[in-house]
Amino acid sequence: MSQNDFFQRHQATLDQALNAIKSRDYWSPYPENPSPRVYGEDAAQKGEEAFKACLNNYFELEMPGITGEVAGEESPYGIDMNVRYPKVDFDVLIPEMKAAMKSWRDAGPDVRAGVCLEILDRLNKNSFEIANGVMHTSGQGFMMAFQAGGPHAQDRGLEAVAYAYRAMKEVPETATWTKPQGKHDPLVMEKKFHVVPRGVALVVGCSTFPTWNTYPGLFASLVTGNPVIVKPHPASVLPAAASIKIAQQVLKEAGFAPYLVSMVTDTADAPVTKELATHKDIKLIDFTGSNFFGNWLEENAKQAQVFTEKAGVNTVVIDSVNDIKAVARNLAFTLSLYSGQMCTTTQAIYIPRDGIKTADGEMSFDDVAQALSIATSKFLSDNDRACMVLGAIQSCATAERIKECEALGEVVLASEQREHPQFPNARIHTPMILKVDASEQDKYSEERFGPISFVIATDSTEHSLQLAQDVISEKGAITLGVYSTDDAVLEKAEEVAMEAGVALSVNLDGGVFVNQSAAFSDFHATGGNPASNASLTDGAFVTRRFIVVQSRRHI
Amino acid sequence: MSQNDFFQRHQATLDQALNAIKSRDYWSPYPENPSPRVYGEDAAQKGEEAFKACLNNYFELEMPGITGEVAGEESPYGIDMNVRYPKVDFDVLIPEMKAAMKSWRDAGPDVRAGVCLEILDRLNKNSFEIANGVMHTSGQGFMMAFQAGGPHAQDRGLEAVAYAYRAMKEVPETATWTKPQGKHDPLVMEKKFHVVPRGVALVVGCSTFPTWNTYPGLFASLVTGNPVIVKPHPASVLPAAASIKIAQQVLKEAGFAPYLVSMVTDTADAPVTKELATHKDIKLIDFTGSNFFGNWLEENAKQAQVFTEKAGVNTVVIDSVNDIKAVARNLAFTLSLYSGQMCTTTQAIYIPRDGIKTADGEMSFDDVAQALSIATSKFLSDNDRACMVLGAIQSCATAERIKECEALGEVVLASEQREHPQFPNARIHTPMILKVDASEQDKYSEERFGPISFVIATDSTEHSLQLAQDVISEKGAITLGVYSTDDAVLEKAEEVAMEAGVALSVNLDGGVFVNQSAAFSDFHATGGNPASNASLTDGAFVTRRFIVVQSRRHI
Repeated sequence: MSQNDFFQRHQATLDQALNAIKSRDYWSPYPENPSPRVYGEDAAQKGEEAFKACLNNYFELEMPGITGEVAGEESPYGIDMNVRYPKVDFDVLIPEMKAAMKSWRDAGPDVRAGVCLEILDRLNKNSFEIANGVMHTSGQGFMMAFQAGGPHAQDRGLEAVAYAYRAMKEVPETATWTKPQGKHDPLVMEKKFHVVPRGVALVVGCSTFPTWNTYPGLFASLVTGNPVIVKPHPASVLPAAASIKIAQQVLKEAGFAPYLVSMVTDTADAPVTKELATHKDIKLIDFTGSNFFGNWLEENAKQAQVFTEKAGVNTVVIDSVNDIKAVARNLAFTLSLYSGQMCTTTQAIYIPRDGIKTADGEMSFDDVAQALSIATSKFLSDNDRACMVLGAIQSCATAERIKECEALGEVVLASEQREHPQFPNARIHTPMILKVDASEQDKYSEERFGPISFVIATDSTEHSLQLAQDVISEKGAITLGVYSTDDAVLEKAEEVAMEAGVALSVNLDGGVFVNQSAAFSDFHATGGNPASNASLTDGAFVTRRFIVVQSRRHI
Repeated sequence: MSQNDFFQRHQATLDQALNAIKSRDYWSPYPENPSPRVYGEDAAQKGEEAFKACLNNYFELEMPGITGEVAGEESPYGIDMNVRYPKVDFDVLIPEMKAAMKSWRDAGPDVRAGVCLEILDRLNKNSFEIANGVMHTSGQGFMMAFQAGGPHAQDRGLEAVAYAYRAMKEVPETATWTKPQGKHDPLVMEKKFHVVPRGVALVVGCSTFPTWNTYPGLFASLVTGNPVIVKPHPASVLPAAASIKIAQQVLKEAGFAPYLVSMVTDTADAPVTKELATHKDIKLIDFTGSNFFGNWLEENAKQAQVFTEKAGVNTVVIDSVNDIKAVARNLAFTLSLYSGQMCTTTQAIYIPRDGIKTADGEMSFDDVAQALSIATSKFLSDNDRACMVLGAIQSCATAERIKECEALGEVVLASEQREHPQFPNARIHTPMILKVDASEQDKYSEERFGPISFVIATDSTEHSLQLAQDVISEKGAITLGVYSTDDAVLEKAEEVAMEAGVALSVNLDGGVFVNQSAAFSDFHATGGNPASNASLTDGAFVTRRFIVVQSRRHI
């Protein structure tokens, strides 16, 4: 096959993606509906079988420098994983990846974009296999694992390709420069402009979103010509491995070294990320995870461009509402979905201690808190449905944190342990809501990762907004939700969002939730507060992944 | 006046600039010819008068926090400057600048671009005044001070505006997001996307190019909504001050706080840059200067995005030529212009020890070196013309360095002291060329700033190219020139340029010189080797200066 075949095959999709990032209307080439009518009658079963075939088995990847095996995943649903992955000597791997970079670089943006879109297309066709992997490593419920781990992750990957492609194409490949010299002949030069990758890239994955948070950095670096090492979180390796296998197959078919996308796996007991991230030849790093390690990378991986998404205190401010039940239902879903283990889940809910206005009159602070508590209980009253939405708690530390945090405030809604209808050993806990006073800032202004949120009694909405701005500016946040029927308050909220550098959602009371962001339309994180130094996806996320090297000569 | 008037006035110029950065053909709205027919009959005289009126005087700028005066410039041409500048308490200044940022931010990209283009237009009209200031601080000859300090600097400023404007405009201000829901009504959201500046920006200027190296960062930060403090080099304050005064006038006329562009001046004895650059509210830093301080900023100013242009070992490789005289004339100009004090001047010239091929037959290493030496002597034989081209040596340290470096090799061309026809106290020195062996890497692979270059005897052209790649990768460089009549060598040179991340000029033997770069067409520095972490101007130079903050709500 010609190297350009993939580009031709996917050019229409790429063009649509380039339009989507401009218009920012809804668009996706990867259906989020896992229905057999969309993905094929046997897609679900085949995907599950492919997943099961990985269990208790060695997962093969093509990489130089394999020295043994490494394993250690444990499913939050309690099934035995026991997948073994290649253990790699990255001092052997990295030089080989560097050597393979030249032909990938010289292939140019079109060929690279074509390969990336083919990888994404095959990832999409394998969404069920990957969904099973995401579910059993992250603990997400199946539907979420399918959507967020499959099509939505693919969307984010494609979005990164589109941004990077546009940025590369803004540099012409050649130019003729003609400078008039009065009566003399003009000076004429012929110029070439090469898009040159930075070097080997590293993507450090997280345990909760092993594909959604890995694809943007992976594809942004790859399409700009950089070979990529994925270092998945030791608890969530399989979905990354399955994705990399597909990438390797496509690269090979297109005539490139498959290990242009490689995987380095470690375990919690013997982590390698620090050593790998400070390797002199690692020039780009994408990281999703804790502030502690993200800040460490920003300060220590000086040889690399570092893009981080870290933690924060996601916030909701309630000033006034039309329909408290609709608002409470909306927030109940946000607090429940994946047991609050999203980097966008609300933790701090500011409400004036004197209560709020509703269309039906005044409502006290405690009544608002109760409405939220009742809506959440009701939403989770059917255990089967609850388990599907909650999923399982990814790590023991998160489950323990619920207990540890109980004493931080007055319990408005207690967390319950639940039993999953299919997986008796699954680690399932419902959300806990605590009531605190605005003055107890040390309690609610640290990130408490997991299904833990606070209703916070403030002096007024003005006070709420000020606290929101201060805490987000200092601790970071990816989402801010504001509920108000007062335009002046909403205007002030817009100002707070700009000052704190956080995305704002206003009066969500229907089918859109503050913790969800849509690729091609919503920017995920801003890079403007301590929760991240980058945004998915903006120009800054892609332009630093390559340089332009020019040459010029007289014609 | 309406805030949009300036945008309307300059929209056609901005559109042309946006085209120019795409086509990368020659373009400039600011004539480089200082002729009275272009700039007006009395422009030169008025500019000189305006410059002279500054001497022995207090230079007024509008800034909160002025506490006294500071002075200390000394002209390399030996005239008395004695200009006094405001001394500012930046703990008073910075909060006021932050407060003024909001209205500048809310004015939006069009209004800001209009104001920036008006500033650039007035800078252009004041090119003679600024040229006198550049000449008497940097030591550049008048013609160069006019062109590089005037129109070419304005070009680089406009280029930065165009890049930043394009990047901001790639984010739509609003969008409607409509997500189909099968048989149900679609989810519809209305979204706003705000371009939000990072905060107060700092531009740290250099002594040799006080406007050319200041305008890109200044305008890139300003047009993206950030207030800007210029901290000029204490030896070259006046051209920056004159530029800032114009910026303040335009800002004021447009209804903004004039001190959105401010100046903090210090002296060599009492520098403030470290303190200023690590101030918590400084969010962007542009720096041109030494590796030592540039690296210090990159490592210590962690609260800011840091863009640096530092030093390196600019390189020429001679493999084979058609006309050695044309090549030698071209290189003689490069080595002579501004006494080699450009960040683009060649320092290392690699030549095979067994000689090169020319159209007239073989030529020995020594004959090539001699040709270069003779061409330089001849070019500088007329003292009046020599002084115009050489300009004066900016700092005593550079003048002393010539003497210090004499012992590093065999002197092929000795540096001479010259007397300027108009300025008897001017510090003028002609270039020195030293012969060394490739093995003496410590001698030629450190930057020797000033009119000092090395002809380096190598084993072969292959050896020359390998050394070029190694030294540039380790020490950095902004320019690489290669002379060869062999296509295979030129192909290899293209590869070396990509590997080392350096701009390549091929076979320059006419009116274009390796040390000159043209705005809108040539990328100055790549950000891909130790000589810089940024490029003038590419996408990466502008996209990190703002973030995007969105809000969304149901319609």
